[in-house]
Amino acid sequence: MERAARGFVTRHADGPTVTTPLRIAEVIAVGSELLGSHRVDTNSLFIAERLSGIGIDLRAKAVVGDEQGRIADLCRQAMSRADLVVLTGGLGPTDDDLTREAVAQVLQLPLVEDAAISAAIERRFARRGLQMPAINRRQANVLEGATVLDNLHGTAPGQVVERGGKVIVLLPGPPRELQPMLHALCDGMLGARAGKERTFRATLFITGRSESHVEEAVQPIYSAWRVSDPPLETTILATPGQIELHLSLKSADPSAAGTMLNDARDRLASVLGADVFSTDGRFMEQIVGDLLRTRHLTLAAAESCTGGLLLSRLTDVPGSSSYVRGGAVLYSNEMKTSVAGVPGALIAAHGAVSEPVAIAMAEGIRERTGADVAVGITGIAGPGGGTPQKPVGTVAVAVVAPGGSVRVRTFSFPGGRAQVKFHATQGAMDMVRRALQGL
Amino acid sequence: MERAARGFVTRHADGPTVTTPLRIAEVIAVGSELLGSHRVDTNSLFIAERLSGIGIDLRAKAVVGDEQGRIADLCRQAMSRADLVVLTGGLGPTDDDLTREAVAQVLQLPLVEDAAISAAIERRFARRGLQMPAINRRQANVLEGATVLDNLHGTAPGQVVERGGKVIVLLPGPPRELQPMLHALCDGMLGARAGKERTFRATLFITGRSESHVEEAVQPIYSAWRVSDPPLETTILATPGQIELHLSLKSADPSAAGTMLNDARDRLASVLGADVFSTDGRFMEQIVGDLLRTRHLTLAAAESCTGGLLLSRLTDVPGSSSYVRGGAVLYSNEMKTSVAGVPGALIAAHGAVSEPVAIAMAEGIRERTGADVAVGITGIAGPGGGTPQKPVGTVAVAVVAPGGSVRVRTFSFPGGRAQVKFHATQGAMDMVRRALQGL
Repeated sequence: MERAARGFVTRHADGPTVTTPLRIAEVIAVGSELLGSHRVDTNSLFIAERLSGIGIDLRAKAVVGDEQGRIADLCRQAMSRADLVVLTGGLGPTDDDLTREAVAQVLQLPLVEDAAISAAIERRFARRGLQMPAINRRQANVLEGATVLDNLHGTAPGQVVERGGKVIVLLPGPPRELQPMLHALCDGMLGARAGKERTFRATLFITGRSESHVEEAVQPIYSAWRVSDPPLETTILATPGQIELHLSLKSADPSAAGTMLNDARDRLASVLGADVFSTDGRFMEQIVGDLLRTRHLTLAAAESCTGGLLLSRLTDVPGSSSYVRGGAVLYSNEMKTSVAGVPGALIAAHGAVSEPVAIAMAEGIRERTGADVAVGITGIAGPGGGTPQKPVGTVAVAVVAPGGSVRVRTFSFPGGRAQVKFHATQGAMDMVRRALQGL
Repeated sequence: MERAARGFVTRHADGPTVTTPLRIAEVIAVGSELLGSHRVDTNSLFIAERLSGIGIDLRAKAVVGDEQGRIADLCRQAMSRADLVVLTGGLGPTDDDLTREAVAQVLQLPLVEDAAISAAIERRFARRGLQMPAINRRQANVLEGATVLDNLHGTAPGQVVERGGKVIVLLPGPPRELQPMLHALCDGMLGARAGKERTFRATLFITGRSESHVEEAVQPIYSAWRVSDPPLETTILATPGQIELHLSLKSADPSAAGTMLNDARDRLASVLGADVFSTDGRFMEQIVGDLLRTRHLTLAAAESCTGGLLLSRLTDVPGSSSYVRGGAVLYSNEMKTSVAGVPGALIAAHGAVSEPVAIAMAEGIRERTGADVAVGITGIAGPGGGTPQKPVGTVAVAVVAPGGSVRVRTFSFPGGRAQVKFHATQGAMDMVRRALQGL
């Protein structure tokens, strides 16, 4: 715990001080499971982002199975091209965790058991009332001369070694173990060793338009920025429920970069209007949560086809208990009637998936819970249940605003069951946002 | 179109017939955008799956930016290790599409413009009423002697070249262009060249034990299989809420492989007992759903800290409307009382996060909905709200089984808010499973 508080500690500090700035990095993700068809190496995205923030470019990344010779080959090749090599994974306790051994082979360094680390791992197990399995002792093996990075969320420590002005970093594979270590490194040693240029970024999140419609609106604007000095890069990404515009700029002058990015963001926002819901990286559930919290309003929801996903997303936000009252998942018609008071005759007349039923659900749950804002969602998530009139993807959403005024809308979402559920929650939250912002 | 129907056509067929089977593949994904923090190379998952089906192992994969020298280096290194090298992306029309040039450099082959391809690209533009931009002519450049793979969904054709018994495949980056080409190759030329062996797989999903405790239990068993003939590989993966054992086996005899895998799976299941919840790849929400459906039972839930995630996960399964009644998200104490009838005195005596309250929530929602099985969840998801007695991660779960018998348990989950929410839903579903299976 004490070591953790200090970030990391240099155990050995022989060798000359090297001052060449780190500019180019490569990542090697280790793990046979990453070569299968189920796992994607998402760590490298985080590493790319974090390194780019301190001006280090990720130039290549590789994924390799649990084979010591291969890992060593790749490490050697990466060291011949890059200033910084980050290896992730393969630091676990089992036989097939070979990253330590591979790097030891490349650098011709012995591995030595670190008593402090094995004691820490033992304590970690003891805290959970468990004895440390003998195999975990391997995780205390450290490259001679390495800086040890404490692991706050797991057993395997990270390690940093330098060789001829190059830096080699070993990080554990689980993201929640890796991320704090990389943060500490970028704020500390790696940040100090990088050059003066930093990458600055801004984002806009948009909903209610397709990717090509966003592109059409903004392309004439951003294309000129590519050739400005310094050039400002714009990337458009379509993700579930939102289109994202990512702006980035390399500069050694934070204040000039900030001004340039703010101007660019405002320019793009002005042509996209109310469809821009976030200009600071907050997601929809945070935007809606902050609107509710700052206005001291509470929310409740009655969900049918989304099955609880709307309330679950809203309650993913820390502190949401101050504005989320709760609600009901009303999968059957009987429950729509008994819990939200939706008249059976209304369901019979319009069908369970209809705007009148969505409104009755929202009004019913609002009355039942005393919330200021209420949402009713009813739709067909599929794959079954669609009809020619109401195909899969049809979702009616009603929002009752604080004064009691009602907005209702029928969406037609593409995709499978999971997509329809997600899009419906995104559409419902956007309706709440627009209602609260008077848009 | 005519060429497409035939899969692909060998334009040149000089050189001797090589019969060494293809066993080992490497993938090189080309594109600077894949080195940023937003795009993941998902093509390689598809390629891994498809190649493994015909017995070719993906041993490594690399992502590289649009730099000809780097692409060439990686291609050369991959060819020194693998029988099959698949390059994806970098076949577009622009200056920074350099895969063709890089491979030409490695193989020292000229690029020749293929008149049939440029005519096809021209026709493709003409169909949309457009003239082919001059830069698209680059996409008609083919490595001399290459087999051309028609692109049904875009302009860049794929290419296959052989050199010294090794096969080099160039595929376009967009998944909908790449996938049909790879299907055709695996069903055709690659399948024929792959040898008779295929990969067979089995999985076990486990809950309620840590990765190291699963490892300790099964390691003595599977370590012997590694040296059996044929060897059976076992991989342990820890994913949120479950530990996965993946078994795989290469064999030219599907029936013998099936028997061997089934025996192995049964052997592992026997030492892990009731903690094994799935031996056929079904996830927990499907397992619980199938138990409910086949027994004609319905389920309802009253959720506090999970905020609707339990019901949302259960309703992710198609057809879940036949057994999920619905339920309530009771974030506030008042709602626990008004909706689920939890006595205020009970909350005052034991605290909202307590086993008596979880039981009262489950019994209340069961009565209210008439469901056969009911779940009550109350806990502290964090980051706020923890106390020394009840720290963040404390979650009480109650399950009322069809006969009315009650099980209750207090968990202590690690991790942040999202992890605690997820683990709590996994733990609750596992309690339902064990109750229904009488475990």
